[in-house]
Amino acid sequence: MTISIHGIGVGRGVGIGRAVVIASSRADVGHYFIDAEQVEAEIARVYEARDALVQEIQLLLATMNKDMPGEVAALLEVHMLLLQDDELYSGVRYWIADRLYNAGWALSTQFERLARQFEEMDDPYLRERKADLEQVIERLIKRIQGEESPLAMQAPASSGSECLDAADVPLVLVAHDLTPSDMLQFRQSVFKGFVTDVGGKTSHTAIVARSMGIPAVVGARGASRLVQQDDWIVIDGDAGVMLVNPSPIVLDEYRFRQRQDELDKTRLLRMLNTPSVTLDGQKVELLANIELPQDTQAALAAGAVGVGLFRSEFLFMGRKQHHPDEEEQYRAYCQALEGMQGLPLTIRTIDVGADKPLDDSVPDLAHLNPALGLRAIRWSLAEPAMFLTQLRAILRAAALGRVHVLIPMLAHESEIRQTLQMLDMARQQLDEKGMVYGEVLLGAMIEVPAAALTARMFLEHFDFLSIGTNDLIQYTLAIDRADELVAHLYDPLHPAVLQLLAMTIQAAIDAGKPVSVCGEMAGDTSFTRLLLGLGLRSFSMHPAQILAVKQEIVRADAGKLKDWAQQVLASRDPASLMRS
Amino acid sequence: MTISIHGIGVGRGVGIGRAVVIASSRADVGHYFIDAEQVEAEIARVYEARDALVQEIQLLLATMNKDMPGEVAALLEVHMLLLQDDELYSGVRYWIADRLYNAGWALSTQFERLARQFEEMDDPYLRERKADLEQVIERLIKRIQGEESPLAMQAPASSGSECLDAADVPLVLVAHDLTPSDMLQFRQSVFKGFVTDVGGKTSHTAIVARSMGIPAVVGARGASRLVQQDDWIVIDGDAGVMLVNPSPIVLDEYRFRQRQDELDKTRLLRMLNTPSVTLDGQKVELLANIELPQDTQAALAAGAVGVGLFRSEFLFMGRKQHHPDEEEQYRAYCQALEGMQGLPLTIRTIDVGADKPLDDSVPDLAHLNPALGLRAIRWSLAEPAMFLTQLRAILRAAALGRVHVLIPMLAHESEIRQTLQMLDMARQQLDEKGMVYGEVLLGAMIEVPAAALTARMFLEHFDFLSIGTNDLIQYTLAIDRADELVAHLYDPLHPAVLQLLAMTIQAAIDAGKPVSVCGEMAGDTSFTRLLLGLGLRSFSMHPAQILAVKQEIVRADAGKLKDWAQQVLASRDPASLMRS
Repeated sequence: MTISIHGIGVGRGVGIGRAVVIASSRADVGHYFIDAEQVEAEIARVYEARDALVQEIQLLLATMNKDMPGEVAALLEVHMLLLQDDELYSGVRYWIADRLYNAGWALSTQFERLARQFEEMDDPYLRERKADLEQVIERLIKRIQGEESPLAMQAPASSGSECLDAADVPLVLVAHDLTPSDMLQFRQSVFKGFVTDVGGKTSHTAIVARSMGIPAVVGARGASRLVQQDDWIVIDGDAGVMLVNPSPIVLDEYRFRQRQDELDKTRLLRMLNTPSVTLDGQKVELLANIELPQDTQAALAAGAVGVGLFRSEFLFMGRKQHHPDEEEQYRAYCQALEGMQGLPLTIRTIDVGADKPLDDSVPDLAHLNPALGLRAIRWSLAEPAMFLTQLRAILRAAALGRVHVLIPMLAHESEIRQTLQMLDMARQQLDEKGMVYGEVLLGAMIEVPAAALTARMFLEHFDFLSIGTNDLIQYTLAIDRADELVAHLYDPLHPAVLQLLAMTIQAAIDAGKPVSVCGEMAGDTSFTRLLLGLGLRSFSMHPAQILAVKQEIVRADAGKLKDWAQQVLASRDPASLMRS
Repeated sequence: MTISIHGIGVGRGVGIGRAVVIASSRADVGHYFIDAEQVEAEIARVYEARDALVQEIQLLLATMNKDMPGEVAALLEVHMLLLQDDELYSGVRYWIADRLYNAGWALSTQFERLARQFEEMDDPYLRERKADLEQVIERLIKRIQGEESPLAMQAPASSGSECLDAADVPLVLVAHDLTPSDMLQFRQSVFKGFVTDVGGKTSHTAIVARSMGIPAVVGARGASRLVQQDDWIVIDGDAGVMLVNPSPIVLDEYRFRQRQDELDKTRLLRMLNTPSVTLDGQKVELLANIELPQDTQAALAAGAVGVGLFRSEFLFMGRKQHHPDEEEQYRAYCQALEGMQGLPLTIRTIDVGADKPLDDSVPDLAHLNPALGLRAIRWSLAEPAMFLTQLRAILRAAALGRVHVLIPMLAHESEIRQTLQMLDMARQQLDEKGMVYGEVLLGAMIEVPAAALTARMFLEHFDFLSIGTNDLIQYTLAIDRADELVAHLYDPLHPAVLQLLAMTIQAAIDAGKPVSVCGEMAGDTSFTRLLLGLGLRSFSMHPAQILAVKQEIVRADAGKLKDWAQQVLASRDPASLMRS
C-alpha cells in the first residue's frame, strides 16, 4: 500500500530512492558513512566502549559504600545486563557492516528499533523501561564520541559515495529533524532528497536542501515513524508530498518528471554568459551565499560577481571542545578569498542561536525563545575573546583581497558602538603584534524590525546594508518560520514587511550606499520583479538560484516596475497584484 | 555568613521573611497550603497512591510474559523498593503536617532534598540514579493529581493565612521558576516576596509580583539551590538583590526602609478622589488590568473608571481535563460585570502560549520559540469550538453590562476577517438557540510590529485599539523579555519602539477612535509624561499603580509635553531626554 505524507515542499523537483531513516536521539550523534575498510575498526570501537563501561560498573559495585541503599546496586546490575545484551550488538554490527554507518549512528538506529518493540507493549510500566535502555545506549555513544577525533567527522563525501557504489542504489534521508551539523555532513553526500517530520519553509534544513538543489519535504509529520529502513520513497518538492512504496506506474510518472527537470536546468545554463542587465539597461549585481571556503567554486561557476554572504558559523560547528583559533579561521578566510580570484568576499561574523546552535551542549543557548535570545552579535559581544579572534582573522585575510565584514542581528546603537570598538581593538592588537592586515568595508544585516525602522542611523555607521529577509519577516510578524503550526502565517508579502523592505532600500539609496538582500527572497524568482521595482540592485543567493534570477532580470523593465512596486506597496493585498 | 545574590528587581520595596523553597519538578505540581484539619487526609492520599502503585507493579510481575527479558523484572523490583522506602514518607509527612504543603508539593520538596544527597555523590553512576527516584515520585504525584478535584485548587487564600497563623512568621518564596498557575495560587497568599532563578523584568512572574505590590527579584541565578528551607531572606526589589541570613544590623536597616515605604503608600491614598485631569484640563482615562472576576473590587477601590484588560486565560488555567464550558465562563464574566457596577469591562479573548501555557501537558505549545508560535488569536482560530464557546459566553454577558472584546496578537488582515466571521457565527448560534445577548465594542491588541505598521487598516475593522507594549517591544527588538541573558537589551525607549507607539496612537487619533496602552509602560510612572505627550489619553494598568500614575497626570501639562515628546521621538538617544 502506498502511503503519502503531506508537508512543506522545499528544493524544487523530484527525488527517488530508498529510505535511510535516522533515529532521533537525545545524544547529539554524528551521522556519516565510513569506508568499507573501516568496518572492523568501527565495530571494535563499540565493543571497547562496552568493555570500558562494564569495568567501570564492576569497580563501582566492588568498592561501593556499605551504607548505600540496596536499590542502587540493583539498578547497576540492570545496567550491566542491558549493556551485555547480545541482541543489541548483533543489530549494531549489521548497521556498521552492511550500511557503513558510523558507530554512534549504528547505536542510535539500533536503539530506535528496540525502542519500537518496547513501545508496542501494552503495559505502561514495560513501555517506560525504554528509558533505561536509552540511558545505557547514550552512555555508550558518549563514550565513543569522547574518543572520536574531529578528523573522523570531516570526510563524509568520499566515503559516502563509496557507500553508494557498494549499495548501488539511490538513497533519500528521512529524519525527525536534522541538526545543522548533520546537514553539513550530508551536503556533499549521496542523498537524492530529504524528508523531516518538523520544520518550515525556511528552517535550516530547508535552506540547506534548497541550496544543494535537491528536493525535500519538511514538516512531514510522522514520516520518520511511518517509514521503514529501505522503503522506496518519492519526494515531490514542488507539491510538498512524499510517497512511501509507490506503485510502478506512479514511480514511472515521477521518473519522467525527473528527466523534464534535468532538461530545464540545461536550458538555464545558456544564461551563464548573459550580462545581468534589465531591458532598460539597469545593471544588477548577483552575489552568492556560501557556507564553506570551497563553495566559492560553485559561486564563480554560476557567474556570481562576489560573495554577498559567507556564513562563518559553519566553521564553528560540530566542535565540542573549543572554537577554531585565529590561524585556522585565517586560513579558511584566505582559502575563500583565493577562490574568489579578486572578487569581493562578504564574511558575516558568527551568527549562532535559534535554529543554528553550535551544538547541543552549549547550555546558554537552551532558552525558551532562542530566536529572541543571546544570538549573533549579541553572543559575539558577550564573548569578546571569541569575537576578537574572529575579527583579527578577518582583518588579516583582508590584506590579501577584497573583504567586506557583515554584522548580524544588530538592533541598538549601543551595540553598533560596541562592535566598532571591538573592531578598533582587534586592529590595535594586530598592530601590537606587528601583523599585517587590510582595509574592510563594514556592513550591517537588517533583520530586526527595529533596525529597519532606524536604517538611517545604521547608514551613518556602516558602508553598506544587507537585508536578511527571513528573520526580518519572522520578527515583524512574530512567526517562527520553523514552526509548522504557524508556518502558513509566514508571509513575505505582508504589507508591513514590504514597508520595512522599501524603507530600508530607500534609506540606502538616499545615503548613496549599497544595499542588498541576502535572505530567501533574493533567490526566489517570484520576488525578483518586486525587489527590482523597490530599487534593489544587488541580490545575494545560493549559487544554484543565480541563473534563474538572472533570467527574470534580463526580461524586466526596471522603470516600469518602479510604478507597479509602489502600487504593491500601497495595496492591502499585495499578493493579488503579484499574480497580475 | 550572609550571601547576596543579584538579579532583576521588580515590585518595588523590601520584603523580609523565612524562605519557602519550591523544588523544580518535571511534573506540573500544584503548590498550595492545606488547612490544619486536612493534614491527616492529605497524608492518607499519599499512602493510597503508594498502595495503588505497589499493587499495580505486583500484578504486572505476576502476569508478566515469560519471554520478557530478565532486566525488566529487575527494574520493576527496584521501583518497588524505592516506592516502599520509609525515608521518603517520613519526609513527606513532615512537609504536610508541619508546613501544611499539599501532597504533590510535599512529594516534590522531599524529592529535591533526597536528590541533593544523590548529587553530592562522587560517582557519576550513583549520581544518575536520581533519575529513577524521580520517576517513582513523578508517578506518585501524577496518581495523586489524577484524583485531585479542581475544587481543592481554588481556595488557597484562607488556608494560606491559617498557615501563617500557625507558624506566626513571615514567609518569602524562592523557586527556580514559577508557572502562571503557581502565581495564581499565591497571589492572595501570605508571601512577603518572591525570588526566582530565571526570568526578566517583564516575565510573567515579575508582572504578577508587581501587580500584587510586593517585592521580587527575578533572574537571581542559583538562588533556589543556595537557599535552604527556613533561611532568613531579605528581598530588595529596588536594588534587585536578595540577602540570605543577613546580620541583625542589616536586617534592622531594611526594616526601617519597609516602614518608610508604608508611609509613602499612605500619602498616595490622598489622590483617590482627585480627578484624573492634566494641568491644562485634558481628561485622562485610568483603567485597570485584572485577572479574576473578584479583582474588580480592587479596580474600583483604586478609582479605575473601567477595566481595560481582563485576562480571561486565567479562567482556563490549572485545568488538566477540559476548558471551562460556556456556562462557567458566562458566570465568570457576569460576576466581573456585576462588580463593575455599570462601568465598562474589556475582556481579552484567550491569550495562551509563550510564558503563559495553560499547562505543561499541551504538547502543541512545546515549540522551539513559543513566543513566535501558535498563541493567542492564532490558537483561538485553530480551535474554533473553544473560541466560539468563549465568544458566546462573552456576548451573552454583554446583555447585562458594557462589554468590550479585545483580540490579542493579530497581525494579518486574513486573521481579522476570520475573527469577525467567528463573532458572526457565535451570534448566529445564539440566535438559533433563542438566547439573549448584547452589543459589544470590538478592539484589537497592537502588539506585533506588523500590526503597528498597519494600524490604519486595523482601525477600519475595529472600534478601538489597545497597545500591548510588552510584546510590541519584544518583537520589535527581537528580545525575549523573560531571558535574563538579553533582558538588558529590552528597551521601551528604543527609537523604533517609540516610532511604532507614536504611529499607532496618531492613527487612532486621526480615525477618531479610542486607543489605550495596557502593557507595563502604562503603569510605570517614568513613562506617563511621554505617553501623554504622544497623545495617549487612556492608560490601563494594575489597580495598585493607578494612584501613582494619576499623581503624574495631575502634575503634567499635556500641551507642553506634546512638543517635548516630538523631540524625544526625533532623538537618537531618547533616554537622555527623559532624564531632563
